[in-house]
Amino acid sequence: MICAVCSSVPAQPHALLQLIQIFTCSSESVVSASLALPCKSSKMKECFNSPYGTQYFKEYAEKIPGESTQKLSEVAKECSIYLVGGSIPEEDGGKLYNTCTVFGPDGAILAKHRKIHLFDIDVPGKIQFKESETLSPGDSFSMFDTPYCKVGLGICYDIRFAELAQIYGQKGCQLLIYPGAFNMTTGPAHWELLQRGRAVDNQVYVATVSPARDEKASYIAWGHSTVVNPWGEVIAKAGAEETVIYSDIDLKKLAEIRQQIPILSQKRYDLYGIEMKK
Amino acid sequence: MICAVCSSVPAQPHALLQLIQIFTCSSESVVSASLALPCKSSKMKECFNSPYGTQYFKEYAEKIPGESTQKLSEVAKECSIYLVGGSIPEEDGGKLYNTCTVFGPDGAILAKHRKIHLFDIDVPGKIQFKESETLSPGDSFSMFDTPYCKVGLGICYDIRFAELAQIYGQKGCQLLIYPGAFNMTTGPAHWELLQRGRAVDNQVYVATVSPARDEKASYIAWGHSTVVNPWGEVIAKAGAEETVIYSDIDLKKLAEIRQQIPILSQKRYDLYGIEMKK
Repeated sequence: MICAVCSSVPAQPHALLQLIQIFTCSSESVVSASLALPCKSSKMKECFNSPYGTQYFKEYAEKIPGESTQKLSEVAKECSIYLVGGSIPEEDGGKLYNTCTVFGPDGAILAKHRKIHLFDIDVPGKIQFKESETLSPGDSFSMFDTPYCKVGLGICYDIRFAELAQIYGQKGCQLLIYPGAFNMTTGPAHWELLQRGRAVDNQVYVATVSPARDEKASYIAWGHSTVVNPWGEVIAKAGAEETVIYSDIDLKKLAEIRQQIPILSQKRYDLYGIEMKK
Repeated sequence: MICAVCSSVPAQPHALLQLIQIFTCSSESVVSASLALPCKSSKMKECFNSPYGTQYFKEYAEKIPGESTQKLSEVAKECSIYLVGGSIPEEDGGKLYNTCTVFGPDGAILAKHRKIHLFDIDVPGKIQFKESETLSPGDSFSMFDTPYCKVGLGICYDIRFAELAQIYGQKGCQLLIYPGAFNMTTGPAHWELLQRGRAVDNQVYVATVSPARDEKASYIAWGHSTVVNPWGEVIAKAGAEETVIYSDIDLKKLAEIRQQIPILSQKRYDLYGIEMKK
């Protein structure tokens, strides 16, 4: 199974929600998909065109299904891939969400993850941002099955909350995917650390996809889309620039690691437990 | 508040349970304590003299209180420090435990942590070890209060289990201490990563204390006693050799980080929870 992560510079100034994550079973179809996606980006820019800023979300929000997700569905079907389409501002019932959609090779929607943990940060002199001013949080976990493995989804700030990954791990996910856009403060400090931590603690693969860096944007993304294996090793990593990275998701290696250091079977559930309440 | 971590080569060949962790409020008393400890090590070598190997634990096990812990108590009182005394094989009721004891400035025992997660590992061609062949696991969490902050304890392999640190964090611990002896396979791969992960996920200080490396030992410790701050930064780190490292545990910085990235107040306890069952 191959995981391809596409870091691209947003089509519009300041936009950063154009995050694409694809994966499939053959490298041949990955290559065709990765070729198809950049080609389609000129058409897709209208779909992933929300600048990242609480003041923009309302204007750019869409229903799901809507224009952007329809295009994601078409690309997934055309390339016969599983496509995790970053996130867009979603409007539903008068509320706005930061939402990631996933489509299967037949173009059907497989999962819709609404960001559970809204990003509120205040590092004086460096970065201030308060998503909760305009967005509503999601209220559910998001997993989907593929013929290769089960996948758990989070968006950006969700990765800071270990419990989400722990629950996905308990439910049998072997790959966690987080579209995200860490910034120039939290990126160098925590982006890779959090991914490696989730991977080694839950003995899963972790893939993150960030927009490429645009120094002219009001919110400058750190970039560095990454894939980490269950040993905590970075096995593929983008720089700050536009690129596509590929990684083999090796479930045999995952099984070996779980056997070598059997933390999953040695949990002391008589002493503690992670509870999924919904 | 100052945290001093002493990495020393075990007094006997192969022994590695001579792990010392001290902390106190003034740098003056830390210096006197760190001077006192190496001086006392000639007396202490009989106390921390179990080689690390399942075949040795029974022979070297002691009751608590017993000879080793009595000496730890005396050092803590003499130096007027809090002393986390690594771990020793403990015998109680016919069972053996891997146990860490903590003493206060008056020499009284403050906490006794029996390793909850026994270290069973099998990385073919690199490292095999099965603690559960001879040891029994502890059945309780171990926290203690000081005038400076509340501290949570784990031993070595316990650090791989995120739930333990999460519960300590929820209970108000601001410093987690793990005596441990990672090996030459897991040390370079995971020793620092796990500490930084626990620190950033729970926004706490994490201090680990390892024996210094003895290349002639049957079990070769990685060394690298470390202190990590709640931002996930390594703020003090030993090499493989004998040394004492010092670190300021800055609770003001801890509070600032918790305010800047408010993950602890943004947990979604309506969706998930970490339950402490005992």
